[in-house]
Amino acid sequence: MSLIVQKFGGSSVANAERVFNVADIVTSTYKEGNNVIVVVSAQGDTTDDLIEKAKEINPHASKREMDMLLATGEQISISLLAMAIEKLGYPVVSLTGWQAGMVTDSNYSNSRIRKINTERVMLELDKRNIVIVAGFQGINRYDDITTLGRGGSDTSAVALAAACHADLCEIYTDVDGVYTTDPRIVPDAKKLDEISYDEMLELASLGANVLHNRSVEMAKKYNVNLCVRSSLTRAKGTVVKEAVKVEGMLVRGVTKDNDVARISLCGIEDTPGKAFRIFSLLAKKNINVDIILQSIGRDNKKDISFTVAESHIDEALKIIEENKEIIGYETMSYTTKVSKVSIVGAGMVTNAGVAARMFEALYEAQINIHMIATSEIKVSVLIDEGYEAKAVKAIHDKFELA
Amino acid sequence: MSLIVQKFGGSSVANAERVFNVADIVTSTYKEGNNVIVVVSAQGDTTDDLIEKAKEINPHASKREMDMLLATGEQISISLLAMAIEKLGYPVVSLTGWQAGMVTDSNYSNSRIRKINTERVMLELDKRNIVIVAGFQGINRYDDITTLGRGGSDTSAVALAAACHADLCEIYTDVDGVYTTDPRIVPDAKKLDEISYDEMLELASLGANVLHNRSVEMAKKYNVNLCVRSSLTRAKGTVVKEAVKVEGMLVRGVTKDNDVARISLCGIEDTPGKAFRIFSLLAKKNINVDIILQSIGRDNKKDISFTVAESHIDEALKIIEENKEIIGYETMSYTTKVSKVSIVGAGMVTNAGVAARMFEALYEAQINIHMIATSEIKVSVLIDEGYEAKAVKAIHDKFELA
Repeated sequence: MSLIVQKFGGSSVANAERVFNVADIVTSTYKEGNNVIVVVSAQGDTTDDLIEKAKEINPHASKREMDMLLATGEQISISLLAMAIEKLGYPVVSLTGWQAGMVTDSNYSNSRIRKINTERVMLELDKRNIVIVAGFQGINRYDDITTLGRGGSDTSAVALAAACHADLCEIYTDVDGVYTTDPRIVPDAKKLDEISYDEMLELASLGANVLHNRSVEMAKKYNVNLCVRSSLTRAKGTVVKEAVKVEGMLVRGVTKDNDVARISLCGIEDTPGKAFRIFSLLAKKNINVDIILQSIGRDNKKDISFTVAESHIDEALKIIEENKEIIGYETMSYTTKVSKVSIVGAGMVTNAGVAARMFEALYEAQINIHMIATSEIKVSVLIDEGYEAKAVKAIHDKFELA
Repeated sequence: MSLIVQKFGGSSVANAERVFNVADIVTSTYKEGNNVIVVVSAQGDTTDDLIEKAKEINPHASKREMDMLLATGEQISISLLAMAIEKLGYPVVSLTGWQAGMVTDSNYSNSRIRKINTERVMLELDKRNIVIVAGFQGINRYDDITTLGRGGSDTSAVALAAACHADLCEIYTDVDGVYTTDPRIVPDAKKLDEISYDEMLELASLGANVLHNRSVEMAKKYNVNLCVRSSLTRAKGTVVKEAVKVEGMLVRGVTKDNDVARISLCGIEDTPGKAFRIFSLLAKKNINVDIILQSIGRDNKKDISFTVAESHIDEALKIIEENKEIIGYETMSYTTKVSKVSIVGAGMVTNAGVAARMFEALYEAQINIHMIATSEIKVSVLIDEGYEAKAVKAIHDKFELA
């Protein structure tokens, strides 16, 4: 008997018909003799509707009360899914985050899971109940309800799989796996059968919205077998697991990210500690900096450019302006009219020609490169906004990923 | 510093504007130097909407999962009210039933409160927080969410008031107190300033839907000072407390109940234990029997008539038919075309003429009486359906209650 964790997102349970589709997948897995833990998100637009209700009353409501409010979304979907499974005649029990023992820190609206007290879940599995757990939520040490922030339900599922030593964690979504690039841009993009945690991490952080980074990081840490599948087609999906050495395949996928803004600081005094100062100020406000480019010093001055998420640009500019004296720069400029295009693949590090081949593809497509960043398994370039689809297609063709 | 519990029903928090009206009442009380616990029901039609969602998926869903679903209704309203109070600049914290320590039995959908662990609530009050508690819900010993059934939020409020030794428990509703009869029927009905627990109990059980019986019973048991007020007019309301001896006022109110059906069993053998058998069979299925009338035996046979709630009639008839042999009756008949009209007043027991005066009023209005039941503080009569408004008016006038 295997233990399988299955996670379904909000669109998978958006209405009664879809809830029964999920119930069918779950009970089929159960019927085959497996124990099943199901993690569910809030139905379709429920979370947005609740946020709307809150905003009408207080746009600056405390995060604690927002979490109290938003946690109802998953509580509704777990009970409805349990009712559907009852209707199909299977033993089932739904559990909220706290009932499932999901203990988090107190960082409301963006909590991290600290530990999972699995007694209740294991007890229900021992009774051969299908166990449905509310994703995205937990409680802190004060017994207050918390939520995990974006991608939280994926993280709930992987954490439960790790804590309960599940044999497999299936993430059901509305795409049927991980592709070499976005099929809406490049129609002949290919579905990958397998991908390593690290490659998936890069793809996720680069905007391929299949799995959230936190869940992949956790899967990697606890070596959870992940599988991304479609709840609609039920096709085989993509397995995410420990690095698979594939000699022939250097580049695994091409991805783009439009949520990027570039900030440039010119005329910074060329003394140690300047970069540290800038980025620690931003880090304190939880602003992630991605690509960083520092010019070679000249006349004892240097320039630093870096990218942040577009949604963080206002706050980032404010911090930098407020700290002009401390940082000590002459001028600041920024643009949001840029996009990031990246290639990802575990084999790249051992193959020097990969980056050059990517730049060649962009050159042939007459696309100008503003910034370049490389890591062991990825190469990212910053280009003008509007050219990203063309760039992705050119690179995808160049590496013959179709 | 006093501790005041304030309870607001679903219509009092139906939309953002009303939520702020409640927030205003609560913070005004707090500003006066009181500690405040607020108990709230689900917003307006939320509960009905959730039931609708459930029915679409499984009309025979387990009560456990229904409670899991319905409990979200109050969780939404407590967080929204907390946000409104935050907006007004007061310290506040919302608590679900389980966070507030509401421990119930496991009778899902109709649980009884077993005990309240008040530590968390008292801790928050010590911090001078306004404490908002979700009404209608709790948890059982297995940490599963339960709901208290009809009138549950009133019961939550009174139980909290008792457990926390509150000085006053205010029940805010959409009427501004307890009246001598329904003002929609008799426009010159008078609001009562005070009423005893027992009188309130009879009025509640007789269909004057201001307070639910369970909450009044609990208030009586723990001697909680209750007050029924309107959240809209904020008028003084009616205080419900220990019996007040009012010599002059014999009859406190007149009430009607259309949710009544009469069942008659004829030709029952006149031996001991027959009545016991009938009513224990009904009691086993939780069917409450109200007025019972037994004819004097003749030819060793007797007739028994009794009333049940109209919603129970089908089940009651089924039980009686299935047990025809055991009960041993010749014929059964029933009607739902009856109504019950009652007068209530603590002073009645010492004044024999009260019942006669009620019958006189009905006689003068040419209304026929089918059954009569009396207790220490009430007299009820069963009359033909359709005449109840006329009867209430006639009795109200007769006793000069206006």
